[in-house]
Amino acid sequence: MLGLMQDRPLLISSLIEHAATFHPATEIVSRLPEGHVHRTTWRGVRDTSKQVANALKGLGIQPGDRVGTLAWNSYRHLALYFGVSGSGAVLHTVNPRLFPEQIDYIVNHAEDQVLFFDITFAPLVEKIAPLLKTVKHFIAMTDRAHMPAINVPNLLCWDELIGAQSNQFTWPEFDERTASSLCYTSGTTGNPKGVLYSHRSTMLHTLMELAPDTFGVSSEETIMLIVPMFHANAWGTPYAAAMVGTKLVLPGPHLDGASVYALMRDERVTFSQGVPTVWMMLFGYVDANPGLDPKELGLKRVGIGGAAVSRAMLERFENQFGAEVVQGWGMTETSPIGVISKLLKKHAALPEEELVKIKLKQGRGVWGVDLKIVDEEGKSLPWDGVAYGHLHVRGPWITSGYFKSEGGSVLDAEGYFPTGDVATIDPDGFLQLVDRAKDVIKSGGEWISSIDLENAAMSHPAVAEAAVIGIAHPKWQERPLLVVVKRPGQEVTREQVLAHLEARVAKWWLPDDVAFVAELPHTATGKILKTKLREQFKQHVLPTI
Amino acid sequence: MLGLMQDRPLLISSLIEHAATFHPATEIVSRLPEGHVHRTTWRGVRDTSKQVANALKGLGIQPGDRVGTLAWNSYRHLALYFGVSGSGAVLHTVNPRLFPEQIDYIVNHAEDQVLFFDITFAPLVEKIAPLLKTVKHFIAMTDRAHMPAINVPNLLCWDELIGAQSNQFTWPEFDERTASSLCYTSGTTGNPKGVLYSHRSTMLHTLMELAPDTFGVSSEETIMLIVPMFHANAWGTPYAAAMVGTKLVLPGPHLDGASVYALMRDERVTFSQGVPTVWMMLFGYVDANPGLDPKELGLKRVGIGGAAVSRAMLERFENQFGAEVVQGWGMTETSPIGVISKLLKKHAALPEEELVKIKLKQGRGVWGVDLKIVDEEGKSLPWDGVAYGHLHVRGPWITSGYFKSEGGSVLDAEGYFPTGDVATIDPDGFLQLVDRAKDVIKSGGEWISSIDLENAAMSHPAVAEAAVIGIAHPKWQERPLLVVVKRPGQEVTREQVLAHLEARVAKWWLPDDVAFVAELPHTATGKILKTKLREQFKQHVLPTI
Ligand SMILES: Nc1ncnc2c1ncn2[C@@H]1O[C@H](COP(=O)(O)OP(=O)(O)OP(=O)(O)O)[C@@H](O)[C@H]1O
Ligand SMILES: Nc1ncnc2c1ncn2[C@@H]1O[C@H](COP(=O)(O)OP(=O)(O)OP(=O)(O)O)[C@@H](O)[C@H]1O
Ligand SMILES: [Mg+2]
Ligand SMILES: [Mg+2]
Repeated sequence: MLGLMQDRPLLISSLIEHAATFHPATEIVSRLPEGHVHRTTWRGVRDTSKQVANALKGLGIQPGDRVGTLAWNSYRHLALYFGVSGSGAVLHTVNPRLFPEQIDYIVNHAEDQVLFFDITFAPLVEKIAPLLKTVKHFIAMTDRAHMPAINVPNLLCWDELIGAQSNQFTWPEFDERTASSLCYTSGTTGNPKGVLYSHRSTMLHTLMELAPDTFGVSSEETIMLIVPMFHANAWGTPYAAAMVGTKLVLPGPHLDGASVYALMRDERVTFSQGVPTVWMMLFGYVDANPGLDPKELGLKRVGIGGAAVSRAMLERFENQFGAEVVQGWGMTETSPIGVISKLLKKHAALPEEELVKIKLKQGRGVWGVDLKIVDEEGKSLPWDGVAYGHLHVRGPWITSGYFKSEGGSVLDAEGYFPTGDVATIDPDGFLQLVDRAKDVIKSGGEWISSIDLENAAMSHPAVAEAAVIGIAHPKWQERPLLVVVKRPGQEVTREQVLAHLEARVAKWWLPDDVAFVAELPHTATGKILKTKLREQFKQHVLPTI
Repeated sequence: MLGLMQDRPLLISSLIEHAATFHPATEIVSRLPEGHVHRTTWRGVRDTSKQVANALKGLGIQPGDRVGTLAWNSYRHLALYFGVSGSGAVLHTVNPRLFPEQIDYIVNHAEDQVLFFDITFAPLVEKIAPLLKTVKHFIAMTDRAHMPAINVPNLLCWDELIGAQSNQFTWPEFDERTASSLCYTSGTTGNPKGVLYSHRSTMLHTLMELAPDTFGVSSEETIMLIVPMFHANAWGTPYAAAMVGTKLVLPGPHLDGASVYALMRDERVTFSQGVPTVWMMLFGYVDANPGLDPKELGLKRVGIGGAAVSRAMLERFENQFGAEVVQGWGMTETSPIGVISKLLKKHAALPEEELVKIKLKQGRGVWGVDLKIVDEEGKSLPWDGVAYGHLHVRGPWITSGYFKSEGGSVLDAEGYFPTGDVATIDPDGFLQLVDRAKDVIKSGGEWISSIDLENAAMSHPAVAEAAVIGIAHPKWQERPLLVVVKRPGQEVTREQVLAHLEARVAKWWLPDDVAFVAELPHTATGKILKTKLREQFKQHVLPTI
């Protein structure tokens, strides 16, 4: 017997309608690629998104067609989020930080029909345009005055194209399982593969993002979205902000510490989300300006994910900024909320040292994400905080496979998605990432976590960044090599680093060697590109051989 | 083109599994009808709910069968919430405060196959059992020692029936639109009609209940659920609490001020939900014990709905308890979240007098509930805070009609449900209830709000409760009659009440007469039963005729 409740599809268009109706005057502040700060409102974004929908219609875009973006966080990108998906097309956010050859691969693979791009990317677009087989129109997201002088066919100007449209448009109604957006994984471990989100998965994920047990997005906040809108839908926050009418602050390409700091202060930002690398830039700016007191920002919380939060980062936010750190683990494939590090009530009584250990775990399970850790045979392992295994996840906002079946059928027998990560889970359901399965160092049948070693190394005051990779070893199969970037102006020796580690990790985990480099290779989303690093150190001979 | 996300149905069973997995030791505290305080945990409730599922199977309950409950808030009722719906049957929560003839009407109409009841209701069950045509088993929710000595066929004891079952059970998977629970409206305006919720509607409503912009249910809270689980699923809070593992405190039938106060204090309750009448009882207790300081409770927020919040109540909670009031408007037909009175950020700057006016509005729209106010012809009226009209609502947790098509097809041409309430909506989307369409006083072509008059009368210190009804008038069609219950030990005259009103309402709104009574008739859910009151004053002749 079916219930008798209204059968309304969950559609992304309902979000922008809600925001425009109940929070019409709430501001959306963008620092544009052109340089200046632009101010609009939720009603303004709704109007622009309807103009986008009309423009797409004019360009011949059909339901299901992919619309590409190469863009920073701005009100224009926001209007595309709602205008493209709302009208039934698929928003394909292309990560501009990928290598150019990955970008044309992705755009061709997705068969994007039009490509919207910020002027920052004009040279890139000019370079790849001849290689793009399906793109019929290129739209520079700017006004006439800033139009780039590039040689690209069918080049249109945002302000002219969009500005000429009516802001009246009736959002279509369709099956909520319809594809809404497409995002390729960042390519840390291989060729990018497309994750095709649906309106349903996005809406359920959005609802969960409001929960105080996750990111607690609310109309009371002012959120600065540093996490890029070109990756994993900026963790879903553009949608969540619309659902409750939050003021959004969008920094565009201006992610250097000085710009982020100033925008945070000027707009009274209370919550901000980003990956560790951008926070490192903010810290760098604060260090260089000892007169600043970050508490003046009034920042209450920061959401951090995509890579592990170090103890130093946690303590700096807590002590120097007076802000709570909310770590999350997730993937492009998980929309991305997977687990979130909100403490439990019972933790209030713990001594600081114990508390920190829990805070540094990636987080605990939220409703909607079933977790399990399994051994090589797929057998579930206990949740004792010690046993580690391959992490598999299941739920309504987790992918069932990749676009165009790349990688074949990926789910396990119980319908779980294998994440490629290795983790422990403790009795309270807190997950701790040991490593990526591909990065873990397999030493004599046991596993060494590169993440743990990196975190231990980074707690040394002279270490700016650290990466650990496995180097082939005749006796142990693999042994860890620690690669270190020193802090500017600081000195530290191989022996000092190893002595520092000795006090912090098991003896047999100690790296067999330490190499110092000027910088580490990073992926488009700020992760250490270990494939590249392994390539770099292919010829390295460990002193222990 | 469909998205490629996992197609998992939204099922209520996933809630209790989540709570048991991630919050196994979080307490569920019940003060039972037997008198004592009982403690279990989310894992305990999960185990009991699986025993319930096995017991239902043993009793021959099929998917879709209705399972009735006549019960207070307790862990047993909570286990039924998950065990019945989780196993695919329909939980029919019967409101024990209805008149006995309404109860047997409802149980027969729903065709309940079994009836679970608290021992408080043993006499009632004995009385109506012979009239119940479909109930095959009666289960007293107690242990052997407390089994009531009543003459009811097929009487079973909870502890024996449930305790004998295995706590292993695999929840079935099925269409999320499957009916999950059934609740009849409280009968304020006519014969009760059944609202048939689905798993989908319940789950979406539950997700929204986590939002800080609604009730913000989280694992940080300890929630005392005073709103009854036999009405509108206790505002959905049992589900929301499971979704994030909140500690629940369930007061059973012990709703007198002294009991509520003691339980709140002992369990360190931070948030509590209830209708105004129960809060009046709590205030009565505090008044009678001037030595008490309610701030000792540590209560942070109260959720109030079902009837208007008076200014006195708002201020008392804020000043004497130090608790924020979160008013909501909703109906059995809306799951029940309709609108919620969370202030907007911009209100922070308002002077206290302006702020109070906004706080006393029923609330603003939340995502998932489309609102409109329409005139008699169904034409939409402006949101200017002045124009009032019939309130219509639409969304995924709003009913599309009643069980067994009672009342016919109810939606308007745009798919909105007409609420029977009359309201204004201001430019910020805050809704203010003018009245029920049936209670509004139609005076010379204009409407007078009985609610506004009642609130104005109740602000007089000697008035305990007030109700206004329309009395037929030859010239004006209807004119208001004010019916007043005086505070114990206080005196006030007709003239004094009218003088008090004169300063507060428009002249032509002034009641034509004031009647003093010892008490007002109430419905099962604590609302003034105006049908009964009109009946009582049928013969009343206004002095103005
Ligand atoms: N809080 C965290 N701590 C540590 N690692 C994290 C955290 N959050 C995410 N990660 C890592 O990031 C991964 C998800 O990243 P993302 O989906 O952005 O692309 P990617 O995995 O780097 O790219 P590709 O799949 O192409 O290799 C996770 O699988 C995990 O390894
Ligand atoms: N915050 C509020 N302020 C004023 N009235 C409210 C509020 N919340 C709910 N109500 C009233 O309660 C009604 C919903 O009550 P409920 O669904 O419990 O049953 P009922 O309407 O009293 O019963 P019936 O439909 O059988 O007459 C709303 O339609 C509205 O009139
Ligand atoms: Mg990946
Ligand atoms: Mg009603």
